Amino acid sequence: MQKYEYHYKKFNEFINNQNFSFEPHELYDPIAYTLALGGKRIRPVIALLACNIFGGKYENIISPAMGIEIFHNFTLLHDDIMDDAPIRRGKETVYRKWSPNIAILSGDTMFALAYKYITKTNPKYLPDILEVFNKTAIEVCEGQQLDMNYEDQSQITIEDYLNMIRLKTAVFIGASLKIGAIISDTTQENIDNIYSFGEHLGMAFQLQDDLLDVFGDEEKFGKQIGGDIITNKKTFLYIKAFELAKGESLESLKQHFITNHPDHQQKVQQIKKVYSDLKVDKYVRDEIFRYYNLSLIYLEKIQVDQESRNELKMLADRLIKRDY
Amino acid sequence: MQKYEYHYKKFNEFINNQNFSFEPHELYDPIAYTLALGGKRIRPVIALLACNIFGGKYENIISPAMGIEIFHNFTLLHDDIMDDAPIRRGKETVYRKWSPNIAILSGDTMFALAYKYITKTNPKYLPDILEVFNKTAIEVCEGQQLDMNYEDQSQITIEDYLNMIRLKTAVFIGASLKIGAIISDTTQENIDNIYSFGEHLGMAFQLQDDLLDVFGDEEKFGKQIGGDIITNKKTFLYIKAFELAKGESLESLKQHFITNHPDHQQKVQQIKKVYSDLKVDKYVRDEIFRYYNLSLIYLEKIQVDQESRNELKMLADRLIKRDY
Repeated sequence: MQKYEYHYKKFNEFINNQNFSFEPHELYDPIAYTLALGGKRIRPVIALLACNIFGGKYENIISPAMGIEIFHNFTLLHDDIMDDAPIRRGKETVYRKWSPNIAILSGDTMFALAYKYITKTNPKYLPDILEVFNKTAIEVCEGQQLDMNYEDQSQITIEDYLNMIRLKTAVFIGASLKIGAIISDTTQENIDNIYSFGEHLGMAFQLQDDLLDVFGDEEKFGKQIGGDIITNKKTFLYIKAFELAKGESLESLKQHFITNHPDHQQKVQQIKKVYSDLKVDKYVRDEIFRYYNLSLIYLEKIQVDQESRNELKMLADRLIKRDY
Repeated sequence: MQKYEYHYKKFNEFINNQNFSFEPHELYDPIAYTLALGGKRIRPVIALLACNIFGGKYENIISPAMGIEIFHNFTLLHDDIMDDAPIRRGKETVYRKWSPNIAILSGDTMFALAYKYITKTNPKYLPDILEVFNKTAIEVCEGQQLDMNYEDQSQITIEDYLNMIRLKTAVFIGASLKIGAIISDTTQENIDNIYSFGEHLGMAFQLQDDLLDVFGDEEKFGKQIGGDIITNKKTFLYIKAFELAKGESLESLKQHFITNHPDHQQKVQQIKKVYSDLKVDKYVRDEIFRYYNLSLIYLEKIQVDQESRNELKMLADRLIKRDY
């Protein structure tokens, strides 16, 4: 068994043993519901992996890893209200199943619970892990705000977009690895390099997500294909397409995105065709590859045995190929 | 100058020097707006006071005190969405001035900022202050959930109500004092006793707030009189009145609360009359006095010089009399 699978199994055992049946149940039911939906658990698992690779102790990282997963789920709860999203992981979102107020307050409670779990470790790690966690939590909020801003702005550049996904997604991948590394007592250099490895990997990961949203296999992807197109989300593909399009392609993009086509399936098909004609997917793949390669440069700098380096390389491949 | 005023001045100097002009400004403008509205700053000031009384250092408590104030304001931001409140401290609430989404996300950012400030102290205090802060943050959410639950429930007992305000308000008063005490290196006994002093004082404080909402002087109170009556809030007064009312009084209560009287001013006048006839205000005053006396029992147990004890006694009187 690869180390990733091992830590995934260990984390699932831990999370399944946590109890959220408290009163008032109106507050805790949505928390238990959200955490039971599963998801890929990437962030806590890579925190465990990073800690283990540098020789850290399981009992010091498992609770912070749980805090990381709860924080991630808290952001989803609030994002789903803001994005008006009906479905998450194949189930009704909390704000739809209960109410926006419940989703706000259960989310807030999860935020506090995240800190409760994160602080349950050897106290000597607290200043460093809290510094990275506090910073990252703020950045994730900033990223979400930019994402909302971009909905109403017409002139978003690729640079804007990359900065937004860096804040919203990439830094938290970096931070999860960094927290694992901090708890292992490894060198500051290793801590910084694994963060940068994760940050660049996180960029590639999000771009891959954008690509799969349009060109993925629905069953493997686990989400409806074309969701970003239907909601007019200004992803890398959208921005690149508008950059490249001329004549008929540009008209088609404008017609479908700006006038809000009523037939979702037709809209997705038409836009997908424009994206293919413009070879937008190739540009995304190049950008994914660029970030993937950047992440490998930081991986090379990490001082660790070959087996562990291979584990991190496999992690990179796993996040990019997404065949899990 | 009393110590309270001195710490109030010091805290205001500190908060006025903090900068929240960051990007994206859509996220930070509401934070700056909220923190500039002022308010009484009770929680951070009593944290400073408690720390000072036990000989703690200003530079260790000032940043956590700021974190306490930011957390309190974060709860107001989200509560105002949930309670559909248009006005806070005489100004438009954030969710009305901007939008619910902005209020959710600015609030989340404030939560993260609160932790950022709280962790900026001598690291030796981190485990203890985070333990109390995490616990209290969760309790405040539980209290808000109970408050929302009670809106839709008809049978709320005085006991239910007291438990709700304990979670929503009182524990945070206790926690603010406790955090100050922890940062002073005083004894565990003093830490526990000042928490209980604050918790009971917090109960009296909230009951006083309920009383002033109906019988207060609008100018001194700083809020519209009768707000709780207009919104059918199930306060101590409401529950006690239904407990005591018979015949005509009961009919009047039912008519005004349950059928939602369209004329707010008339409703407030009528309910106020019923409350007076039933002497509900006397019952509240007795309850305030009971909690005030309980708080003084814990005050007596605190090992501290006479001058400091007097300061804490003045704090209790200040919070109850509310003549500031």
